[in-house]
Amino acid sequence: MKTALAEEFGIEYPIFAFTPSKYVAAAVTRAGGMGVLGAVRYNDPAELDEVLTWMDENTDGKPYGVDVVMPNKVPTEGSSMDLGAMIPEEHKVFVNRVLDDLGVPPLGDDAGKNAGVLGWLHSVAQSHVDVALKHRPVLIANALGSPPVEVIEQSHAAGLKVAALAGSTKHALAHVENGVDIVIAQGGEAGGHTGEVATMVLVPEIIRALDGRAPVLAAGGLGDGTQVAAVVGMGAQGAWMGSRWLTAAEYAEDGGSRAMQKALLAATSRDTVRSRIYSGKPARLLKSKWTDAWAADDAPDALPMPLQNLLVAEAHQRISEAQDPEVVAMPAGQIIGSLDGIVPVADTMAQIVAEYEAAVERLRASLG
Amino acid sequence: MKTALAEEFGIEYPIFAFTPSKYVAAAVTRAGGMGVLGAVRYNDPAELDEVLTWMDENTDGKPYGVDVVMPNKVPTEGSSMDLGAMIPEEHKVFVNRVLDDLGVPPLGDDAGKNAGVLGWLHSVAQSHVDVALKHRPVLIANALGSPPVEVIEQSHAAGLKVAALAGSTKHALAHVENGVDIVIAQGGEAGGHTGEVATMVLVPEIIRALDGRAPVLAAGGLGDGTQVAAVVGMGAQGAWMGSRWLTAAEYAEDGGSRAMQKALLAATSRDTVRSRIYSGKPARLLKSKWTDAWAADDAPDALPMPLQNLLVAEAHQRISEAQDPEVVAMPAGQIIGSLDGIVPVADTMAQIVAEYEAAVERLRASLG
Repeated sequence: MKTALAEEFGIEYPIFAFTPSKYVAAAVTRAGGMGVLGAVRYNDPAELDEVLTWMDENTDGKPYGVDVVMPNKVPTEGSSMDLGAMIPEEHKVFVNRVLDDLGVPPLGDDAGKNAGVLGWLHSVAQSHVDVALKHRPVLIANALGSPPVEVIEQSHAAGLKVAALAGSTKHALAHVENGVDIVIAQGGEAGGHTGEVATMVLVPEIIRALDGRAPVLAAGGLGDGTQVAAVVGMGAQGAWMGSRWLTAAEYAEDGGSRAMQKALLAATSRDTVRSRIYSGKPARLLKSKWTDAWAADDAPDALPMPLQNLLVAEAHQRISEAQDPEVVAMPAGQIIGSLDGIVPVADTMAQIVAEYEAAVERLRASLG
Repeated sequence: MKTALAEEFGIEYPIFAFTPSKYVAAAVTRAGGMGVLGAVRYNDPAELDEVLTWMDENTDGKPYGVDVVMPNKVPTEGSSMDLGAMIPEEHKVFVNRVLDDLGVPPLGDDAGKNAGVLGWLHSVAQSHVDVALKHRPVLIANALGSPPVEVIEQSHAAGLKVAALAGSTKHALAHVENGVDIVIAQGGEAGGHTGEVATMVLVPEIIRALDGRAPVLAAGGLGDGTQVAAVVGMGAQGAWMGSRWLTAAEYAEDGGSRAMQKALLAATSRDTVRSRIYSGKPARLLKSKWTDAWAADDAPDALPMPLQNLLVAEAHQRISEAQDPEVVAMPAGQIIGSLDGIVPVADTMAQIVAEYEAAVERLRASLG
């Protein structure tokens, strides 16, 4: 289970695990893949600095990555207070009404209020990059297109590879033009921000379009080793998996909520929905009473990024604290239908490797 | 490129080609795959009888299949005239207004008016089965769930295998319960009637759920040999491809319209839309000015099956005769973005086989 890119990074398996949990990221790296820690939730750079220090110390000297959410074009900037003034009253009333209807209690008086995910403001994402470069990740990945050229140059100067997600050949070609090293071809079945073209179609299409100009990782709908074999057979240099790790035992130990994991284990592959309600851009989410409320006839349209997330930030915090598996606000891909237990990362990695080998053996046999 | 199911059918390659063209179906069978002829457009059983006689005579004694569109539950029945009375005036006005706006001329006085696709009426589909059993297909496939149990028994008695499309594990399990022999796991990126779960996710999920109780073919987004290797590696017994053959040279010779083929060659993988406007049930279509009109704010909701197709039958005929590549009414999957020329079936088959072998070789190499 080797690819040229895995060898270049010095990792045993071409499994790239995107996760918001340092425990999961470090466990994947230690198990021979590459953990990629999502930085977007760290509004305070000092907090990310601390977490990456922990990563440096808990990955046995093996490589890891950091994922930022950095728009290529600088979007609406401003403090959360300035931006808050741009949110229509109608939207605030709707959010509060829905939470009351769903029985989600208000925050206690002593709860620190979540300012919203500011990580996708350019200034905050830039601070994530600055912090990351003080540590030893080998990869910076960006979920919202090519990073700005200064960031690519800054990362290259520090010896890091830069990867960017692409939901179309047009975006993939633009990434390579912009100096991105690795294209992550992400199909519409993926969790989080995603396009509409499915992984099965998108991966070979992007590989053909790039014609060797950059290595391609495949993302979207990948959870087992037969799916990893599928994309490596197409010519991908590895698999980028996110939702697969949401039910990792290590995540449960790292603040991953039990209500969320319970909801994921109960979900089928049909229980996701692609919607703009999380961030303002289309993202695939776990279907729940919260997403249903936004799909109802009386719901307002989602606001543009970054306003929508500011609108729902406190709601997400209330939902998270209420711990109701039927009311969850969570990016998740269609592969959640295949998650069947709270499993340690090392066991999942071993299973993926075994499934991969079985798939290759089936294919060998088919050629006689 | 062998699987157990391909050996059982005595075909060289596990490539199942669904097509409305007898020329294409026969060419696939002659090239070592299995052509599966769509019967839905033959409202007159005598016409299907004639076409299957042609198939019998032009397939070198090799196996072929027939695809019917048969609801498991008997839906609204009646002549097209009875059903026509159930269509609201508002819908008729909308269709005529859109066609006028798009510059699609009315039919000439001498044109026979298309009565609409009646093939998905139970009575008509049953006549398709009766006709098929007088010929020598080896497979009856159904696009709308399990066929009625009488049809399965009738087919088995005649020595045919019965296959049914499934867009979820629930449907796949029901098919096997109902006596279906082969489950076609079809991802949401497929053309025509389709669910929402992507092929990459759905295929291993259904294979796991069936646990060997029935062989699984994979469908949706499949066009090249690396994708066939992907699904065979997952444990599928072959690939079911539809859109791949829409630009076959043989289809062009068999009344496949040049405007439609031109539109398909120009389309990217993003140029499809899943909508109920073709038949009343969700189906993925080529995006065109026609589908755009139905997505506009002033468009009525689609009618239930079979009324919607009766509503648009004459419109489809007008669109077809107008030969405008920007106004097309055509089921098509996301793989159309990869179609790059009008190519004879035998050349496409050879290319798929070569790509498959290259994929297996890449995977072999990855294991060192």
